[in-house]
Amino acid sequence: MAGTDEIEALIEMMARLPGLGPRSARRAVLHLIGKRGQLMTPLARAMGQVAETVRDCTICGNLGSSDICAICADEERRTGQICVVEDVADLWALERGHAFRGRYHVLGGTLSALDAVGPEDLGIPRLLDRVTDEGATEVILALAATVDGQTTAHYIAEALEGSGASVTSLAQGVPVGGELDYLDDGTISAALKARKAF
Amino acid sequence: MAGTDEIEALIEMMARLPGLGPRSARRAVLHLIGKRGQLMTPLARAMGQVAETVRDCTICGNLGSSDICAICADEERRTGQICVVEDVADLWALERGHAFRGRYHVLGGTLSALDAVGPEDLGIPRLLDRVTDEGATEVILALAATVDGQTTAHYIAEALEGSGASVTSLAQGVPVGGELDYLDDGTISAALKARKAF
Repeated sequence: MAGTDEIEALIEMMARLPGLGPRSARRAVLHLIGKRGQLMTPLARAMGQVAETVRDCTICGNLGSSDICAICADEERRTGQICVVEDVADLWALERGHAFRGRYHVLGGTLSALDAVGPEDLGIPRLLDRVTDEGATEVILALAATVDGQTTAHYIAEALEGSGASVTSLAQGVPVGGELDYLDDGTISAALKARKAF
Repeated sequence: MAGTDEIEALIEMMARLPGLGPRSARRAVLHLIGKRGQLMTPLARAMGQVAETVRDCTICGNLGSSDICAICADEERRTGQICVVEDVADLWALERGHAFRGRYHVLGGTLSALDAVGPEDLGIPRLLDRVTDEGATEVILALAATVDGQTTAHYIAEALEGSGASVTSLAQGVPVGGELDYLDDGTISAALKARKAF
């Protein structure tokens, strides 16, 4: 029993969001109701609008408000460099760094034998087509350093052999601002192996 | 940079919910966009509907879809017993217990010298009027066992002196299913002091 059926239904839906459970969803909904004018109505409107207008880019898989995302439509971005990421969150993270000015390719996951995710599910054939069609000279694999991420990276690298594009991956090492004492052994030995002239 | 301006605005609003920050809001929004048909559109609609229809009950302060909430309108609920709670979340918690069949009074907070919250801000004069008007015989103070909660309880108890209503408060003791070893000293000594015949 939580006020009205509408409120209960709302709490139940909110509880399905990642990071929220039934209890925190209840708290969030009560907070929203307390600020219905300033927050709840605008949030509902913004959410409805995004749900209606958001599109997956037909080229790279990024999100945008039309069939071609802002990055693919941007003529100032270098063609010929394609950065492969697992999901849109990773693409946003790279964009926040402002370091990459090429194009992206969003896989939407990683290869996984356990979850029966194959190359077709990730649009890898589409990536290979893009490399040929766009005459890409470099494919940067920005995939997680997990088993599934690295399996996917190796699969893509092999598939790209003979395509003419060089395949690179993100450097592994000490994070900027990171203290050695707090780093795991794998990162430290990777950073040591890849040491460079000062 | 997060896709489109609309998505950015949505993330910013979601990040204002309790329990969510910028990073988890981004995750929640990406999850919503991934399920725009099944979750995002219905959630936006439910949220908009609640924002539009929800009302504070003019009698007790509970939430409902009209000016008088379902509990105050329910003729099967005992009049004469008013349970005073800090906020609607506490009222819901009591209702989930199905143990109380009287009416409620939602204060909307506790007295606080620091935050300059006085009796008028909490509708305490309105509670006193209700006790007289409804001929209440018992006022149950279901307030938190915090300093502010207990200050508020004492203030209300004093204000109700001479009103004819008996003032009670929730029992303190060992939670049902609770292990003694994990309880704080205050709860254990309160439970011991209030021991009863087995």
